[in-house]
Amino acid sequence: MRLPVIILGIDPGLANTGWGVIELLGSKRRALAYGCITTLAGEETALRLRRIHDELQAVIERYHPTELGIEAIYFGANAKSALATGEARGAALLAVASRELRVGEYSPTQIKQVIVGQGKADKKQVQYMVRALLKLDHDPKPDHAADALAAAICHAQFRRIV
Amino acid sequence: MRLPVIILGIDPGLANTGWGVIELLGSKRRALAYGCITTLAGEETALRLRRIHDELQAVIERYHPTELGIEAIYFGANAKSALATGEARGAALLAVASRELRVGEYSPTQIKQVIVGQGKADKKQVQYMVRALLKLDHDPKPDHAADALAAAICHAQFRRIV
Repeated sequence: MRLPVIILGIDPGLANTGWGVIELLGSKRRALAYGCITTLAGEETALRLRRIHDELQAVIERYHPTELGIEAIYFGANAKSALATGEARGAALLAVASRELRVGEYSPTQIKQVIVGQGKADKKQVQYMVRALLKLDHDPKPDHAADALAAAICHAQFRRIV
Repeated sequence: MRLPVIILGIDPGLANTGWGVIELLGSKRRALAYGCITTLAGEETALRLRRIHDELQAVIERYHPTELGIEAIYFGANAKSALATGEARGAALLAVASRELRVGEYSPTQIKQVIVGQGKADKKQVQYMVRALLKLDHDPKPDHAADALAAAICHAQFRRIV
């Protein structure tokens, strides 16, 4: 009997961190859960990061993923938004560090290539294809949750190649 | 009897995170300890962040600071280095978040203005003045530790004004 592989996908951001958990059994995959952690701009950065960290840790404790797919650096971003994204990524990576998850990092282009078949797809196309690939009965929302599921699917694809 | 205020200063970076602890009693200040957390580029980012987080937490547990001075965004940086700095800042801020430290963020220019008297000072001048202001018998090294002590001194200065 083959055991399913549980993969967590994360789309990190200080204001919105999307997350999605998928189960992979052979070539079959299904969504277990997804969501978005939202923090307010008025709050202290340290507390916003703590919330992202703690909520992701709760997701990990609930679904016990053993692997992680996460969006890598977006070079087009300016330094200010890259720093904020970096802070959120730091909080997310810390949440998984103690669980020894196997981490795969994928560029936005790589993820779109895997999900839609071309690296320049827009958010709507990604959402549509994530829904189709996971046989969901509605579009996964918000965008951040769809992007997180896309990162998880991308990891599911690449882990078999490596 | 007035109690001393213990201030932690942090100069966050993925490869090198400087830290310094100073004690403030009235207008008198002295260095309690300083150091630099170094991580290797070959290691997984999640593990590097975990180390930064855990070592800073150990510093906090040892010296019980109640306030933090940390370098704010450096807008001149490119997106890639800003992201890495952001990750390290995220790990550092998470380490202090659960201790409810009062956080002050200062730009490099602000810190140099307070320490050297002009915002465009170089690293050597900062190191020299940190040594003089804290009456150390040698230059604090590496640079990152001196910058962390400078952030702590800067916070000590501003907390009285606010």
